[in-house]
Amino acid sequence: MSVPSPQPRPGKGPRAAGAIFDATLRLLAERGYDGLTIEAVALAAGVNKTTIYRWWPSKAALLHAALLRARVLDIEIPDTGSLRGDLIALADQVIDLVTGVRSRAIVRAVASGPGLPDDGLASLARDFFADRFSREQPVFTRAFARGELPPDTDPMLLLDLIAGAVWVRALLRNEPVPPGFAAAVVDAVLPARRTA
Amino acid sequence: MSVPSPQPRPGKGPRAAGAIFDATLRLLAERGYDGLTIEAVALAAGVNKTTIYRWWPSKAALLHAALLRARVLDIEIPDTGSLRGDLIALADQVIDLVTGVRSRAIVRAVASGPGLPDDGLASLARDFFADRFSREQPVFTRAFARGELPPDTDPMLLLDLIAGAVWVRALLRNEPVPPGFAAAVVDAVLPARRTA
Repeated sequence: MSVPSPQPRPGKGPRAAGAIFDATLRLLAERGYDGLTIEAVALAAGVNKTTIYRWWPSKAALLHAALLRARVLDIEIPDTGSLRGDLIALADQVIDLVTGVRSRAIVRAVASGPGLPDDGLASLARDFFADRFSREQPVFTRAFARGELPPDTDPMLLLDLIAGAVWVRALLRNEPVPPGFAAAVVDAVLPARRTA
Repeated sequence: MSVPSPQPRPGKGPRAAGAIFDATLRLLAERGYDGLTIEAVALAAGVNKTTIYRWWPSKAALLHAALLRARVLDIEIPDTGSLRGDLIALADQVIDLVTGVRSRAIVRAVASGPGLPDDGLASLARDFFADRFSREQPVFTRAFARGELPPDTDPMLLLDLIAGAVWVRALLRNEPVPPGFAAAVVDAVLPARRTA
């Protein structure tokens, strides 16, 4: 598992954006959305709360930015030379995300949205996963170009199967993720195995 | 979607067990684990709280019984004559579970476990999914007997892929589940398609 650096993904914000996003997600995991306040984030990040309000006028806006840009939830888009390699690398990152001590608590808090109005949560989650899906596109563009996928393949379905299996095993069943799980999951869904 | 009846699955308990379990899960969804009290369950179910304490000595014990036996979270084990048919029927039930108004709120509250100590949640979830997995075994026993699955198939992996895809699409991406999604998911993971 890679160690998250405090640097946020590029985007508008003050110099302390990384610390602000980290504090936002840590407090969300500890206290839930109801307990999250911009005052507490400012204190934890060591900035004045007016600095936060200047960039993000509300708690919802701050959480939105933190989810999309914090390093702890980020993924690296792999380019291993094969679709199978890229998907295994993505699956391994989902495993890290849902089993890592810091990220697991954040993932749980966001997935359940305690205190978040349902439509607020829905729009946050939609934006988070839409951003991720658009960044994952090159994996599939390259796979189609290499002829590794039939043209009628639905990339979102493939990703849902892979990420979902990790999610169910680690977060719902609460079972340890066995060694080689990422490869087993990917091999179970790759159409290439038809001709294997 | 089938309409949940108030009858709980067989098991020990008072005659009002169905109403008690329903009230437990409804209050969990509304208030989270911290806000759930046996007094409130008794009031909502129209029974004396000593009736509840006689069978379930703690809130954790009551929730455990409710999760395993309440009709709203129950599944029917299908027997359609083919593995594909059975898995599609199971996937459709997961879709109902995570998109149904009543069950969705319960699923969210349980999956996130607000206020539940992490080990308490882990043991609840483990028992819930272990119970379900043992009940799903006949689907695979019949499929192996019909020669529909290679002997080295891992049934839990198949179920994790199928349930996980539904979970990610409906609860994480917060996207509508398209018509035919259950069949698409099952066809993506069934090894039978190798020879299709």
